[in-house]
Amino acid sequence: MSESQDLLQRSLHSVWHPCTQMKHHERYPLVPITRGEGAWLFDSEGKGYLDAVSSWWVNLFGHNQPDIKNAIKAQLDQLEHVMLAGFTHEPVVALSEKLSVLTGLGHAFYGSDGASATEIALKMSFHYWRNIGQPQKTRFISLQNSYHGETLGALSVTDVAIFKDMYAPLILQSAQMPSPDSRLAETGESEEAYALRCAAALETYIAQHHAELAAFIIEPLVQGAAGMAMYHPVYLQRAREICSHYQVHLIADEIAVGFGRTGTLFACEQAGGRVSDIADFICLSKGITGGYLPLSVVLTTDEVYQAFYHDQTVKGFLHSHSYTGNPLACSAALATLNLFEASDVLGHNQQIAQQLWSTVQAYDLPLKYLRQRGMITAFEVETVNPQFARDCYAAALKHGLLLRPIANAVYWMPPYCLNEADIAHLTKATYMAVAESM
Amino acid sequence: MSESQDLLQRSLHSVWHPCTQMKHHERYPLVPITRGEGAWLFDSEGKGYLDAVSSWWVNLFGHNQPDIKNAIKAQLDQLEHVMLAGFTHEPVVALSEKLSVLTGLGHAFYGSDGASATEIALKMSFHYWRNIGQPQKTRFISLQNSYHGETLGALSVTDVAIFKDMYAPLILQSAQMPSPDSRLAETGESEEAYALRCAAALETYIAQHHAELAAFIIEPLVQGAAGMAMYHPVYLQRAREICSHYQVHLIADEIAVGFGRTGTLFACEQAGGRVSDIADFICLSKGITGGYLPLSVVLTTDEVYQAFYHDQTVKGFLHSHSYTGNPLACSAALATLNLFEASDVLGHNQQIAQQLWSTVQAYDLPLKYLRQRGMITAFEVETVNPQFARDCYAAALKHGLLLRPIANAVYWMPPYCLNEADIAHLTKATYMAVAESM
Repeated sequence: MSESQDLLQRSLHSVWHPCTQMKHHERYPLVPITRGEGAWLFDSEGKGYLDAVSSWWVNLFGHNQPDIKNAIKAQLDQLEHVMLAGFTHEPVVALSEKLSVLTGLGHAFYGSDGASATEIALKMSFHYWRNIGQPQKTRFISLQNSYHGETLGALSVTDVAIFKDMYAPLILQSAQMPSPDSRLAETGESEEAYALRCAAALETYIAQHHAELAAFIIEPLVQGAAGMAMYHPVYLQRAREICSHYQVHLIADEIAVGFGRTGTLFACEQAGGRVSDIADFICLSKGITGGYLPLSVVLTTDEVYQAFYHDQTVKGFLHSHSYTGNPLACSAALATLNLFEASDVLGHNQQIAQQLWSTVQAYDLPLKYLRQRGMITAFEVETVNPQFARDCYAAALKHGLLLRPIANAVYWMPPYCLNEADIAHLTKATYMAVAESM
Repeated sequence: MSESQDLLQRSLHSVWHPCTQMKHHERYPLVPITRGEGAWLFDSEGKGYLDAVSSWWVNLFGHNQPDIKNAIKAQLDQLEHVMLAGFTHEPVVALSEKLSVLTGLGHAFYGSDGASATEIALKMSFHYWRNIGQPQKTRFISLQNSYHGETLGALSVTDVAIFKDMYAPLILQSAQMPSPDSRLAETGESEEAYALRCAAALETYIAQHHAELAAFIIEPLVQGAAGMAMYHPVYLQRAREICSHYQVHLIADEIAVGFGRTGTLFACEQAGGRVSDIADFICLSKGITGGYLPLSVVLTTDEVYQAFYHDQTVKGFLHSHSYTGNPLACSAALATLNLFEASDVLGHNQQIAQQLWSTVQAYDLPLKYLRQRGMITAFEVETVNPQFARDCYAAALKHGLLLRPIANAVYWMPPYCLNEADIAHLTKATYMAVAESM
């Protein structure tokens, strides 16, 4: 048995892989990886896979990125960790200050898992209304087909049946608003007109229920797990206006779309202005460390922070995670933000995105809903194969590509370091994988 | 303004510290740390603080530990991260295999925050009963004064009023069983007799409600957030027998007590045998990486795993976190487990614990409930000062000690690298801090 085959068998025996029906691995391959470099992952036999999904949307500047790696090594020689209750350290302060400048939201509360960020934002919003004397505001709303994580609180605002339905008896009910996903527009209806129609439905709901609503949580511009559903930024503008008018918090979950994925540093910016012009809370994770280490953070306003600032202990936000503000993860995040400052990353990405866009438009395949927001490109494949997603995934692997369609939606969310050869491989291997699995 | 003072002010301005009423920092100091070494943390002026709480119970072998540090650096040069759905890598496989051998529980599912581990175990137990055709088993029970994390699902089994009561409308209700905390025994009643009395109450409850119960979650031997409440291991034995008899899962939350804290590698072992003789699930985090990086894991049995192994996708456990099985965190965990193998850590700890025990017994202070389980030592201070915990914390800092009493319970949960001088400082500075704050 090869080294690769051996690791594969050992993994199936001891590791319960996430988001996986393990029995499917009897037929579909599990791939053992030994190293990464740039946009590529390599197995022990040296076979490479271009990481077109940034390893679940976390990697930004490629694998084995020297600046991030060296920042973590330097921090390892300085201070690996100290508890953040009662104590502090330079990396967490510097990171919080930078995020505050970038978002306009000045108070940073940390966790490690993205789901924890959702939980923190929901609890903080709920607690805010109690602290200011509106304890009847206890409910949350989200969009249809939204994904905000899978801990039970996060699941209460998630709306992906396969993740949620099984756990229904454990989950707080919340209401889902019509998604502005432009695939759902009527024939002839523009993306913008459809987004405005959805915003009107949101307003109708909030006008009726605002007295009991704490917050509306939303994935700005792209609903990832819904299959890269994209929508017009006017929806965010209207949602902000409606939430302000009816005193409901707006929580921007940019865990997946933050840090340049949609073409701007944060997706909210495309609705005009800074994040703080749109959101009362922003949740960040995934790309925040460049794909190196788990770290999540919720940033919020002075107004929210001040409502917790009180002599009474119980008015404080007493939530905690042990590794809150881990210096190693914060150092990786600072190095990642430095990379955005060191060159025109977003401008460079625009060129990559344009190349991807012109290539995918030339595909002679039965595709529909071709769409792109910055470095996220997606299309639906018209096929009768009910196993299309898994077959396409397996076919892509054979061609040296990590592609992970969601139902019939094929998407690219690659690292930002793609070179010309990478782009050629990505587009060619995708074409073949789709063609072979229809 | 000194560098330290400046960092402190910047932190209060930008970082929302966990488990903290931020206004209290107007009076109580926030400490900026620049480096660590062994059991000590140092601020920028070079003042040292002995870390008697292992930075919230995470550090095992001291700060700046060379083996763990070098393992992370080596992994940084190999592979920083790859998604664990469909992919695998040596560090996560090697770690899962080691944990399987050590616990007897052969399937490892990963997260990053400890609270996520609780959520995973609860969801897995619930889902198991659905998959085997017992969908009426939907409820959980835990102990009075238990702590299992603060995401909404974890809070549903947590029973610490200050963390939970505020969020009551968001939380699934669960029942709490009498805690075997030996401080609650009647006068003249032995620790063991009291534990058996609590187990009888558990049996009464489970006998009545087992048809709807999925799992009983418990912190083995020591309830940390309850103020280091300790109890006799016979309770775990009886709980296992009762749970087996009535077909209720037993979830051992060893997030705080695992990895040698209670004198054995895992606390469950003190009830006889291996973890798998007591628990259907074990949750691990905190010390698993030696205090370096966030990582959590739930390990479970073949029986549970097989109930999810099916052709149908929805029978699989589709939960996920982006950084599941992060190679850097897994490498830190492997280096930590290697340190347990490289020398007789538990035997050495016994000597440290005995020294601490004999010193604290000689304190001429009004203490009660002196207690110890391995490397956790605790006592209650009889005082009328309602601010004792915070005053004692502040007094300890002045004496170069990080001590964080829970109400009137003072405890030590230090790293395992304490030398003679550290022990002398720890015991002397604690004495002074307690005496000055009563």
